[in-house]
Amino acid sequence: MSMNTFGHLFRFTTWGESHGPALGATVDGCPPGVEINEEMLQVWLDKRKPGTSKFTTQRREPDQVEILSGVFEGKTTGTPIQLMIRNTDQRSKDYGEIAQAFRPGHADITYYQKYGIRDYRGGGRSSARETAARVAAGGIARAVLAEFVPDLEIKGYMTQIGPHGIEGARDMAEIDNNPFWVPSAKTAETWADYLGEIRKKGSSVGAIVEITAKGAPAGLGAPIYAKLDTDLAAAMMSINAVKAVEIGEGMNAACLTGEENADEMRMGPNGPEFGSNHAGGILGGISTGQDLVVRFAVKPTSSILTPRKTVTRSGEDTDLITKGRHDPCVGIRAVPVGEAMMACVILDHLLLHRGQVGEGLRGKIG
Amino acid sequence: MSMNTFGHLFRFTTWGESHGPALGATVDGCPPGVEINEEMLQVWLDKRKPGTSKFTTQRREPDQVEILSGVFEGKTTGTPIQLMIRNTDQRSKDYGEIAQAFRPGHADITYYQKYGIRDYRGGGRSSARETAARVAAGGIARAVLAEFVPDLEIKGYMTQIGPHGIEGARDMAEIDNNPFWVPSAKTAETWADYLGEIRKKGSSVGAIVEITAKGAPAGLGAPIYAKLDTDLAAAMMSINAVKAVEIGEGMNAACLTGEENADEMRMGPNGPEFGSNHAGGILGGISTGQDLVVRFAVKPTSSILTPRKTVTRSGEDTDLITKGRHDPCVGIRAVPVGEAMMACVILDHLLLHRGQVGEGLRGKIG
Amino acid sequence: MSMNTFGHLFRFTTWGESHGPALGATVDGCPPGVEINEEMLQVWLDKRKPGTSKFTTQRREPDQVEILSGVFEGKTTGTPIQLMIRNTDQRSKDYGEIAQAFRPGHADITYYQKYGIRDYRGGGRSSARETAARVAAGGIARAVLAEFVPDLEIKGYMTQIGPHGIEGARDMAEIDNNPFWVPSAKTAETWADYLGEIRKKGSSVGAIVEITAKGAPAGLGAPIYAKLDTDLAAAMMSINAVKAVEIGEGMNAACLTGEENADEMRMGPNGPEFGSNHAGGILGGISTGQDLVVRFAVKPTSSILTPRKTVTRSGEDTDLITKGRHDPCVGIRAVPVGEAMMACVILDHLLLHRGQVGEGLRGKIG
Amino acid sequence: MSMNTFGHLFRFTTWGESHGPALGATVDGCPPGVEINEEMLQVWLDKRKPGTSKFTTQRREPDQVEILSGVFEGKTTGTPIQLMIRNTDQRSKDYGEIAQAFRPGHADITYYQKYGIRDYRGGGRSSARETAARVAAGGIARAVLAEFVPDLEIKGYMTQIGPHGIEGARDMAEIDNNPFWVPSAKTAETWADYLGEIRKKGSSVGAIVEITAKGAPAGLGAPIYAKLDTDLAAAMMSINAVKAVEIGEGMNAACLTGEENADEMRMGPNGPEFGSNHAGGILGGISTGQDLVVRFAVKPTSSILTPRKTVTRSGEDTDLITKGRHDPCVGIRAVPVGEAMMACVILDHLLLHRGQVGEGLRGKIG
Repeated sequence: MSMNTFGHLFRFTTWGESHGPALGATVDGCPPGVEINEEMLQVWLDKRKPGTSKFTTQRREPDQVEILSGVFEGKTTGTPIQLMIRNTDQRSKDYGEIAQAFRPGHADITYYQKYGIRDYRGGGRSSARETAARVAAGGIARAVLAEFVPDLEIKGYMTQIGPHGIEGARDMAEIDNNPFWVPSAKTAETWADYLGEIRKKGSSVGAIVEITAKGAPAGLGAPIYAKLDTDLAAAMMSINAVKAVEIGEGMNAACLTGEENADEMRMGPNGPEFGSNHAGGILGGISTGQDLVVRFAVKPTSSILTPRKTVTRSGEDTDLITKGRHDPCVGIRAVPVGEAMMACVILDHLLLHRGQVGEGLRGKIG
Repeated sequence: MSMNTFGHLFRFTTWGESHGPALGATVDGCPPGVEINEEMLQVWLDKRKPGTSKFTTQRREPDQVEILSGVFEGKTTGTPIQLMIRNTDQRSKDYGEIAQAFRPGHADITYYQKYGIRDYRGGGRSSARETAARVAAGGIARAVLAEFVPDLEIKGYMTQIGPHGIEGARDMAEIDNNPFWVPSAKTAETWADYLGEIRKKGSSVGAIVEITAKGAPAGLGAPIYAKLDTDLAAAMMSINAVKAVEIGEGMNAACLTGEENADEMRMGPNGPEFGSNHAGGILGGISTGQDLVVRFAVKPTSSILTPRKTVTRSGEDTDLITKGRHDPCVGIRAVPVGEAMMACVILDHLLLHRGQVGEGLRGKIG
Repeated sequence: MSMNTFGHLFRFTTWGESHGPALGATVDGCPPGVEINEEMLQVWLDKRKPGTSKFTTQRREPDQVEILSGVFEGKTTGTPIQLMIRNTDQRSKDYGEIAQAFRPGHADITYYQKYGIRDYRGGGRSSARETAARVAAGGIARAVLAEFVPDLEIKGYMTQIGPHGIEGARDMAEIDNNPFWVPSAKTAETWADYLGEIRKKGSSVGAIVEITAKGAPAGLGAPIYAKLDTDLAAAMMSINAVKAVEIGEGMNAACLTGEENADEMRMGPNGPEFGSNHAGGILGGISTGQDLVVRFAVKPTSSILTPRKTVTRSGEDTDLITKGRHDPCVGIRAVPVGEAMMACVILDHLLLHRGQVGEGLRGKIG
Repeated sequence: MSMNTFGHLFRFTTWGESHGPALGATVDGCPPGVEINEEMLQVWLDKRKPGTSKFTTQRREPDQVEILSGVFEGKTTGTPIQLMIRNTDQRSKDYGEIAQAFRPGHADITYYQKYGIRDYRGGGRSSARETAARVAAGGIARAVLAEFVPDLEIKGYMTQIGPHGIEGARDMAEIDNNPFWVPSAKTAETWADYLGEIRKKGSSVGAIVEITAKGAPAGLGAPIYAKLDTDLAAAMMSINAVKAVEIGEGMNAACLTGEENADEMRMGPNGPEFGSNHAGGILGGISTGQDLVVRFAVKPTSSILTPRKTVTRSGEDTDLITKGRHDPCVGIRAVPVGEAMMACVILDHLLLHRGQVGEGLRGKIG
């Protein structure tokens, strides 16, 4: 299982299993001289950590991040930054029953077939706990971006849970006021009722998460195989349980005509302005300067209380209930993860652009 | 614009512009001793080439591929294979009018802003003509796969065009009998009428393409950041005009419950068998041995005859009609490109698995 | 300072500074199912650690390695292995005097100019302490190689110190019996006298280290830019204070004629046998199956008690004595580092060969 | 044989065999807007091409380079630049005799064992003809450097041939006046006599080549595993027949004391100045702004007229004379190749520095 590294110039390698002593991220390529401390990173980890509402797993992981290297006198040195998070809640007895059977919908069976390893302790490396390390790495990226692109604002939120979309107009101010990060107070109530029912039944449900970045500069993206949208697609698809990624119109682009889909332009006071954003801020793999808009679908948590048919390592049929403390909708905690990946991709492409083209844009219009 | 290379061990670098002397792919990491010749590759290029029906651009490009290196006495040597396709139809006068204005929906403006270059000759590097090189590289991958995994069958087809999906049951035998590679004779008729109208109006429309691989071995995929689905998402999103990628249930996974989405297992004569395939053949980023199912949405061609508002390099507003010979639905010609990318990703992961884990699976069930 | 990763498929990323809380290596791409524990790694770290004789620095660092991930029930899982070594002896007062002045021969000035950082605590990231992490990673590589190539034997030793080469015939059995790892008891005595004098004067001296690998299989090496000798050259040159790398005859090859340099072949019972090994076991970048022979020159420690002219951050001339506890000849402790790098390169190329060509050799002779 | 790519951001992939239809380099990551044309590249290829004096092979290869992509209206576009050189002199009958036997000292046997391929046509991919592609790629790098670092001067020359070093003082003005690029007119005469004898006997001899770069900026190099010297070592060791690489004092550093090896500093009008350059312009893997000094040893040509013992594919002993047209000293033609690699490494690190740290140095002294 090589290939635990993400990024071109701003690169992080995550390591660790859900029930080992620790997990973390080795962040390489962070520019020097940027202010970083553990508190700045902890903010984002707290957003992702379990047990913040009744709609997320009741596992208690404080998820305290420690910086072991790469920061001297409060600033980055340009050397690798080691971020470590100790695992404290390792009730492995919860998982004892599934040491033999493969949980349907989980990576248990594929990891076993590929590696010959059955790390039954909560999924081992395939656990979504790995995403804590990404959120920490994303915190580094955000700190750098705050210095390099002060106007950049990255925001993630849910737009659908099971059959329920957003009711009425979006109110972005509401995002931080409800456990779903949904931009609508009324929708949050509906969803709370719905997900409460799901949770009580020991069931689960999927979701759609949208991540936007306002203020990202034009010119980011390295065609052909490191287009900005290509890298965003890889970033989001690598998150546990994600089954689809959309940019701008996404799947709906299939239904449109060329007239409908065109983002027309007119000169504004500071350069070209677009009349719409079907493209999600990316043309030919390069950012236009408009809002970047990415969406991804998260499948329902595979761990449910209804028995599902499966098999064991010794080849016997069995029916399995996945007990333990699980998220009824993993989409909720995927929001800060998606934000972290967006931050890492933007910073990486900012550095790539600088390396390949130089600082700033080369072609001026007008 | 570095980053023109795709793949980990089976790697290809594409080069060339739509109206330069030639384009091609430098294929590195192809295993030695595999039979390859130009005819084997030409089959796939002919499938993609323009002008095969009235529904694709009437540009006449024979797209003849030449092998310049890496093959000796009819077999691969393990050295880089250079594939060159000469550009023969370079009616650059068609493009003269747009040398100043940026075509909406195209990469004209982003390439110009990033690189300071306005290669008005049909999009230059950002032209979908680049995909001919991928199809050639994919032909190499297919030839290797034919020796390594003889039962593997990769098949691409369209499942939607504008508002029209597939009518009735799928008949995979029909795929090669119509210009849309749609698995339904009746649907092909409906689509022909619909797209004929679109074409006559000088309009365009989007589409959904599905690529499946039957017989791909279990165990492919390198978590966490080179998961099989991550690499497939990157592969498909890198294709021109693609705005979304789905694996298995895709966006629809958001609407399902854990009970609905579970792919249950029972032991069969040769190991575990799945009762369904919501996962699209991938769990935790590793193939299960089921069919791999990937879909992607292609936006409508941006070049249309209805005038669209845009700006020029000198900063003037203008309205632009994109004349010339264009595909009314670029999804059609994206089918062989998607197949090629699927082949490249599967071969790459087969080699990666061999390098990281060894030949075959390590964990046996039963 | 990105680029802290070494290797193609067996990849390690080192992190940490000489006086931070910890340093370590994130090892990615280790094959699954291999027995690993901390004791196995500690053996190699103990060989490198300071204070083992009067000829190495008297800093006391126990250099205890901890495995934080990637090993389950005593075996590798194929996931990233995090190796952490805590820094315990951080007498930073020793370094207070040099916070302003740049030590000649050290990286102080170049790191400062490049990154704007003056990490005066013992060199920070540029300290040779980083090599402890490599030795730990090399321990992983050795454990895997012990299973994959049981006959492989990697051995490092010194062949020169200052003006003194090896006296008389080599006796490889003596290597572990003296503090220089020199294959000659008599030479060890001469060197001890010589280096004792150097040490007393507060001076230092350079050295040549040779690393051999017996039993490495034929066929390793990935031409053109990851030839086995290319990667060995990079591996050794990346070690602190190394100024030259030789393969086989090395620089001396310049003086030979084609007749003298030819390694002639005759068929032996198990295939071709070479009558000599001027090539150092590598032809065209690929191993022949003969002993691999690599040498590297280490410059004298730059920290000496004789005052040297230098400048300060504020641009003043000054004369600097580097006090503190330093190795009079860093070549000694470079021996286990060179061995570790040899092990990592061999394993990496074994995996690469497997990924690109398959298991074993393809062309049989005879 | 993957791994035919060199570089981090300025990356080239070479392809082609000595006797195939063509060979070349795919150059990715070249910054946009730089003036490039075929004549500019041809200058460097002409310097390397065979048959320029009686001391190089009499094969007649015009080595005309064609630019197939990446340049528009005389300037780079930032897209991949394809450089193709057709093979015109393919007298493959010269090589017929060696189709069965493995030439000692050549890669024939290792390529055969690894890949199962016996491309007897002049070495196939392992031929030094591959270096023509590097020289072309180096021409691109030089053109970019001429704009980015106008004062940079890269110069290669020979310092030893067989037992003969340079007689008397160096006169750099003489380099281009003799077939050895040796900086001494008198030495050139001695060498001409010596090599004339070697050539007449059908023998061959090794050489040492030195490459210097004056005016390279301080701050280049990405520790730890892409140090400037690490990358230079890999670059030079990857050249055919090279057996050793030295930076600054090189192997001789082993013989020096700390006092002798120190490059002392004093403030000069424009910053720190060094009193000597034992380091070869690199400290801790980062350039100091002094001259970069790299040397490499080239082994004697393995193709000689004296019969050498070898074996055949079918396992028979035989004695082989390598007829044909060969260089008596391949070191001569390695000079422009070393220069090209130096140019590529410098440009690559200039771009890397820009991407990771920004434009220019961060720490000012004084």
